Amino acid sequence: MDSKHELKCSPVYVHNPHLDALKEDFLYHFNLGTGTHDLPAMFGDVKFVCVGGSPWRMKVFAEYIATELCMEDPKSEYPNICAGTDRYAMYKVGPVLSVSHGIGIPSIAVMLHELIKLIHHAHCTDVTIMRIGTSGGIGVEPGTVVVTKQAVDGTFQPRFEQVILGKTVVRDIDLDQSLAKELLKCSKELNQFETVIGNTMCTMDFYEGQARLDGAFCFYTEKDKQDYLMKASKAGVCNIEMESTVFAAMCKLSGLRAAVVCVALLDRLKGDQISCSHEVLQGYEQRVQKLVGYYIKQQLKAKAGST
Amino acid sequence: MDSKHELKCSPVYVHNPHLDALKEDFLYHFNLGTGTHDLPAMFGDVKFVCVGGSPWRMKVFAEYIATELCMEDPKSEYPNICAGTDRYAMYKVGPVLSVSHGIGIPSIAVMLHELIKLIHHAHCTDVTIMRIGTSGGIGVEPGTVVVTKQAVDGTFQPRFEQVILGKTVVRDIDLDQSLAKELLKCSKELNQFETVIGNTMCTMDFYEGQARLDGAFCFYTEKDKQDYLMKASKAGVCNIEMESTVFAAMCKLSGLRAAVVCVALLDRLKGDQISCSHEVLQGYEQRVQKLVGYYIKQQLKAKAGST
Repeated sequence: MDSKHELKCSPVYVHNPHLDALKEDFLYHFNLGTGTHDLPAMFGDVKFVCVGGSPWRMKVFAEYIATELCMEDPKSEYPNICAGTDRYAMYKVGPVLSVSHGIGIPSIAVMLHELIKLIHHAHCTDVTIMRIGTSGGIGVEPGTVVVTKQAVDGTFQPRFEQVILGKTVVRDIDLDQSLAKELLKCSKELNQFETVIGNTMCTMDFYEGQARLDGAFCFYTEKDKQDYLMKASKAGVCNIEMESTVFAAMCKLSGLRAAVVCVALLDRLKGDQISCSHEVLQGYEQRVQKLVGYYIKQQLKAKAGST
Repeated sequence: MDSKHELKCSPVYVHNPHLDALKEDFLYHFNLGTGTHDLPAMFGDVKFVCVGGSPWRMKVFAEYIATELCMEDPKSEYPNICAGTDRYAMYKVGPVLSVSHGIGIPSIAVMLHELIKLIHHAHCTDVTIMRIGTSGGIGVEPGTVVVTKQAVDGTFQPRFEQVILGKTVVRDIDLDQSLAKELLKCSKELNQFETVIGNTMCTMDFYEGQARLDGAFCFYTEKDKQDYLMKASKAGVCNIEMESTVFAAMCKLSGLRAAVVCVALLDRLKGDQISCSHEVLQGYEQRVQKLVGYYIKQQLKAKAGST
């Protein structure tokens, strides 16, 4: 058994000795808790977790997965498990959990802390997690799906920095390379749209942070913008979004097999505004869902065949 | 006319020469645009903008304001103006706009870029903006309302750092002190709950970033946590939340009169988990709405009296 396989099969764990001392653990932003919910019964069978920014899109994804896996009557309703709060939305279809995370690093970090604790409390094993999202492309055609090779920050460094107890802590953000390759292979088999593997830049802001010229503030020129984006391109960056570094850092730390799969809605070398029609954008978003749905289906078939 | 008054009366402006060159400006995350919507007709009369994390809470606030201002039949429905997207929710009741911003600095920054552009495109004047939220208190009783004197980062510094074109830019984050004092005065007149003025620490994470012992990861001790929170207390920090620094920075840069008003849901010196009942929490959240609603009502009365 190689080390990668070992990682994949080990139970998902938290790194927190204080949790054992808690009489009950209330996952505040999910409105779920060990004292009020039977988490192993509710979530123990989860093998795939898909996370994305928009609650509505994660509901659509859950419905899509239900149809793809022929799990149940595709017309059946999938209730929002976090209905008692509007911070995040969560849907479950058999072994697939679909969870929204909002916009940006802090928003996804809060969700991931509680998701990792949920997976831990539910005694899940062998979990794969994928962020499915939208992004701005760099030098790729709109509609291209980018599977992240390496997440980088706004200075093109492969790291995630966070302040803990007033001190800056730097964390590794390596994603599972074999998973990225499997996803690329799936896209070739599907043969419906372009998919590339490349670096993903994660920023703290959508406007100034991504060198857009159309925010409320802009104190740089079109040339400054192009120079910055060209530097990013030379650093292997194929797309820009706002969650990948902390997602990679937290999954790495918890031993979750993780991938980031985002569609590029536009080519930032050619513009800033997302101006294609609603229908075109929806079609782009569906590509990510198709790819990840195809991968999950394949994995479940392989598992069913081997047992 | 003193300089503060001048600031208050000056039109809200963006700082971006590139915007004039845009044929139309599509506010993507609001699903509103200058090419598709008559923004001056829709928003030109806005004088107060209240922003908060949860979409549901901002809907409740809009309904509360409608009743308080006797604007219309309190039973009338206030539609979500951003219904075409689920990134943010927006409600308008007369001169009051109520907008959700999600969790964390990047999420509120994206919303504020588009809100400031909206206010600019709509030719609004004399706008006051208030963040109404929840927070963890430090050394204050649960339910205490904290009006922010100074926002500080996780190292207790009164600054907001962001990466633009790969370089770190530091921005001023002074809030309007006269507005904070007026809010405190309103609370004394209301005389229904405790309100204090103090510093607010803004962090990038709810768990490790706020020295909680109950996240998925925790590599420090109870004593480390207490030491850090005591240091914060000595730096004048009365509460901790996740948006105040960038909110203050962007409002300062745009010339918007701004305040941060958050209720403390617990005293972090005594614990980490938010465990009071739903009803108690809702009661705490209503305090912020009551205070800000009272202030808005007073201002509108004063204005009506002077014309």
